[in-house]
Amino acid sequence: MAIQTSEQTLLKVLEDKATRLRIDSVRATTEAASGHPTSCASAAEIVSVLFYSVMRYDPHDPRNPDNDVFVLSKGHAAPVLYAAWAEAGAFPREKLLTLRRIDSDLEGHPTPRLPFVDVATGSLGQGLSVGVGIALNAKELEHSNQRVFVLLGDGESAEGSVWEAAQWAAHRGLSNLCATIDINRLGQSQPTMLEHHLEIYKARWEAFGWQALTVDGHSIPELLGAYEKARLTTDRPTIVLARTLKGKGFAGIEDHENWHGKALDKDTAAKAVSSLEKKLLGADGEWKPNFPASSPRSAKAGPASRTLTAKPPYAIGGKEVATRKAFADALAALAKADPRVVALDGDVKNSTYTEEFERVAPDRFFEAYIEEQNMTGIAMGLAARGKVPFASTFACFLTRAYDFIRMAAISHLNIKFVGTHAGVSIGEDGPSQMGLEDLAMMAAEPNFTVLYPSDATSAWKAVFLLAERAGPGYLRTGRPNTPILYGPDEEFAIGKCRILRKSDQDKALLVAAGVTVFEALEAYNELQKNGIPVRVIDLFSIQPIDRATLIESARAVGGLVVTVEDHYVHGGLGDAVLSALAQESVKVSKLAVGSIPRSGKAKELLDEFGISAPHIVNAVKTIISRER
Amino acid sequence: MAIQTSEQTLLKVLEDKATRLRIDSVRATTEAASGHPTSCASAAEIVSVLFYSVMRYDPHDPRNPDNDVFVLSKGHAAPVLYAAWAEAGAFPREKLLTLRRIDSDLEGHPTPRLPFVDVATGSLGQGLSVGVGIALNAKELEHSNQRVFVLLGDGESAEGSVWEAAQWAAHRGLSNLCATIDINRLGQSQPTMLEHHLEIYKARWEAFGWQALTVDGHSIPELLGAYEKARLTTDRPTIVLARTLKGKGFAGIEDHENWHGKALDKDTAAKAVSSLEKKLLGADGEWKPNFPASSPRSAKAGPASRTLTAKPPYAIGGKEVATRKAFADALAALAKADPRVVALDGDVKNSTYTEEFERVAPDRFFEAYIEEQNMTGIAMGLAARGKVPFASTFACFLTRAYDFIRMAAISHLNIKFVGTHAGVSIGEDGPSQMGLEDLAMMAAEPNFTVLYPSDATSAWKAVFLLAERAGPGYLRTGRPNTPILYGPDEEFAIGKCRILRKSDQDKALLVAAGVTVFEALEAYNELQKNGIPVRVIDLFSIQPIDRATLIESARAVGGLVVTVEDHYVHGGLGDAVLSALAQESVKVSKLAVGSIPRSGKAKELLDEFGISAPHIVNAVKTIISRER
Repeated sequence: MAIQTSEQTLLKVLEDKATRLRIDSVRATTEAASGHPTSCASAAEIVSVLFYSVMRYDPHDPRNPDNDVFVLSKGHAAPVLYAAWAEAGAFPREKLLTLRRIDSDLEGHPTPRLPFVDVATGSLGQGLSVGVGIALNAKELEHSNQRVFVLLGDGESAEGSVWEAAQWAAHRGLSNLCATIDINRLGQSQPTMLEHHLEIYKARWEAFGWQALTVDGHSIPELLGAYEKARLTTDRPTIVLARTLKGKGFAGIEDHENWHGKALDKDTAAKAVSSLEKKLLGADGEWKPNFPASSPRSAKAGPASRTLTAKPPYAIGGKEVATRKAFADALAALAKADPRVVALDGDVKNSTYTEEFERVAPDRFFEAYIEEQNMTGIAMGLAARGKVPFASTFACFLTRAYDFIRMAAISHLNIKFVGTHAGVSIGEDGPSQMGLEDLAMMAAEPNFTVLYPSDATSAWKAVFLLAERAGPGYLRTGRPNTPILYGPDEEFAIGKCRILRKSDQDKALLVAAGVTVFEALEAYNELQKNGIPVRVIDLFSIQPIDRATLIESARAVGGLVVTVEDHYVHGGLGDAVLSALAQESVKVSKLAVGSIPRSGKAKELLDEFGISAPHIVNAVKTIISRER
Repeated sequence: MAIQTSEQTLLKVLEDKATRLRIDSVRATTEAASGHPTSCASAAEIVSVLFYSVMRYDPHDPRNPDNDVFVLSKGHAAPVLYAAWAEAGAFPREKLLTLRRIDSDLEGHPTPRLPFVDVATGSLGQGLSVGVGIALNAKELEHSNQRVFVLLGDGESAEGSVWEAAQWAAHRGLSNLCATIDINRLGQSQPTMLEHHLEIYKARWEAFGWQALTVDGHSIPELLGAYEKARLTTDRPTIVLARTLKGKGFAGIEDHENWHGKALDKDTAAKAVSSLEKKLLGADGEWKPNFPASSPRSAKAGPASRTLTAKPPYAIGGKEVATRKAFADALAALAKADPRVVALDGDVKNSTYTEEFERVAPDRFFEAYIEEQNMTGIAMGLAARGKVPFASTFACFLTRAYDFIRMAAISHLNIKFVGTHAGVSIGEDGPSQMGLEDLAMMAAEPNFTVLYPSDATSAWKAVFLLAERAGPGYLRTGRPNTPILYGPDEEFAIGKCRILRKSDQDKALLVAAGVTVFEALEAYNELQKNGIPVRVIDLFSIQPIDRATLIESARAVGGLVVTVEDHYVHGGLGDAVLSALAQESVKVSKLAVGSIPRSGKAKELLDEFGISAPHIVNAVKTIISRER
């Protein structure tokens, strides 16, 4: 423990801190007239013991990479997190009263606007996966002695993602990870499935490979004992199952239903605060922080991105290569260029080809198994700690992690997603394996960079571009082998498209990406034979989009545009182009997959679902004829 | 058992059936030159025992509602499922050789194009939740003695959704549910986390409240014994943990890595088939199906939708009501009108107000707890069995279930999703609680009806419209109370918008929906004062969209359009309107949430993120001035 004093004094200090956390949580939420004071009250002793005895950190330097880490998975208890840092001296207590105001960073749920928050929480069931990622970074990548503490609610432990994280952390033996469940028995709308049956929780967590300790979550000595046991356990993670009462310490509210997410009115709050103040023992002045030992980690800061210059090995007219394969080739090259880069995959590394990365950098490759949510959460934790994670699986299976992806966007993390097997062009496996809504999903996130290369060279370049660009990104790749369109020195940039065919007589503009670029080029040839010259663009960058070039090209051809994509109709490439041209006098014909597809050969399906060369030719002829 | 013969004969019959299933799986996949024969081989005895001894069903009437149900969660083993039904007599064996062809319904992964498939599988970890929904329907709604059997792979049991389903089924005591895990040790790319450690599986499933039985998955007597135990167990579901070998019975392939999803070449296949044929005992001719007892269920067919005519209780100018509240009011009314309607909610029934439905129809309300994926899977199972499930939670948390939603679309299920708390207008809770990508997500699914009402009356009508329209649908609702715009007799229809303001002098068209309709009306008044008449549309139906009215209105105002939505920029209302007007000479200014929002008051946030009345006024003035 941090301070030169007796066990007795420590207990008093932690008791007073817990009381102050309750008082501050009530004051802030009542001032805001909304929030979750009862969810803070159940966790007060847990937070007090962790922040003021167990964790080693510098309260005045929350971003110190050597600090132990606290992840509040039950993000609605934000006020107790804010109170804990204020109490530790990170900022003045008065600021707590700005909770939930538009001019305050003390938001309703924690976000990384605050220096002591790694990842936004508030969508339940995500914090443990994030903690796994941070613990993995400390134990296996930084070899630091940093420890990671996650606080979950009992309601959220129904989320399957929690059990994905649980089994993976145990499989990996992450003994530097210690989670606590604040088992206050009450969900938002009714009691949880397990209420206070701690023995069932214990059996489940032990079966999932964790050391599981049950305690009275309001007993400071029991909590101290449990966390000490966790510290001494070196072979597996520890879960502290804390029996608590929601609204603990608030007369007439404690353990009552219908008090979730409700602030106390001013009178009730005043009464609660004064009765809490009476409990204060005046001991908490004694506390001094427990600073972390500095680790070699800080020396290991990642290199600048200038190193990211490896050249793609593909030659125009050479052997056909799938964009998914080129992604993996590039990622393996990137592994050598940048030690910050890590890769995760969901038991498809022999389809995404990330097994190449594993061969080159086995200690930076993490098999996530069939747990797309946990894979994403781990990547979020790694990104929050300075790594550059690439998380890959079939594009369709990234839909499994959309809630995590959404929170990664809110957290502005430097995380990269790669979806392979985009569209109907995967062929016989059928619709369940086809990524047809991934552009809608990813581009909806306003801070996501979304790249969709057509050939191996551009796919390779896209990987390096995403690595160099800080922030969340998505790379869409395809299954089939396709010709090489670009030489190794071709310049690609985020927000820039490529014009593949162009003349002064062009009658229409074709905008394609990925596999449909080759259909567009075939259509171009057919249209040439018919004396209809068209301009062909490989869009490459879906978001940001090359608005200037699209506008210029659309104007040059007289405003007739045909878009074609191996994606559903809504939210894809066509809509991105329409949006870019929204204020232009253009007429756009959008070709996309308009109904639920089926199994078949790739070529058959491109034709069946209206995105093959003949359909493009017809669309061009139709849109031109309408103008006559 | 079905047939009048000795135990010995039964064993021989089931052994021969298993051998034939292997032969047919090899033949079909080799003919298709793709597929997963080794994943079929590990399950051959399990499928043989279930289909030819345990399950009661009419092979010639796969849609018979009294049949016991089989759900193949490990959808990549489709060939063994198809072989099982062919072997049972549902269709001629020759058809198996059309596997994966574009002209065949025997797709790479099972879809409901086939009469014996309830829900498409192939995205792993979903089948158990679907089975829970079907078992729930049989036990608690139909009170039939139907039993439900789910076959999972071991790799997929890493998916958290499996554990959501597990705990929920046990909590509910669904003893008519029996799942089997085909534990063949090998995932797609490497061994699973648990390989053949059946004792760990057993501990986990027991901790989650199931009867867990471990067997040799290639021993027919052990399998028969386990399923008999399951039949006799009346207090909880049973899981059969079957130790198997991937590629069992294929020399040189059995239990080897790198054989996932690979068809045998013609020579290897021929050798495998001939050695399998040598094992045949010639007993399988003996088999006769085990027909189901008919239940009262057939009498209970749902009523026609003509009954769905209750009137909304809101008056123009009356008390303000939130659209989420109106949804719940309507759903409660619908509960009385239509016994097929059921409701599920993810521990937010006091925010979505589905507690009103629970009050009216407690036996048709199911608390799904914080398990959005399992909630969706249960709803999929219920929909597959003729119910009309409404699954509700905050719009943002439906992203958690996107992979399930995607599979519901592929399955063309009659399932309805309701997202509440859409957009920044929820206020202080902050971005983690704001649904800002739900329109992109839902409208991307080509067969989804997507409605976004602005007031309580239209929200009420939307609920009835979705109930009457067969197929998947989404209703977007908001948190704040808003004025009543429409009288109880106002007509609403899927694919129809409402024109709220109109004159012959209109200079621009405003298209809004939900909360932004009120901002548009405020902008209209301000613009009137400035002598700028505009047309105002409440879009209501995002998909299908009222293309005709939008085109007519855009033309009437000279082609200047401003869209405004409480959603991110990509994939929302604005893009839907742009797409509808793609071939018109229009100029569209799209107002939407362009960056990650934050906590604040609703009004402040609408203004901060550019979708409030003043921003609309500016957008109209700007777009008009550009034309001068």
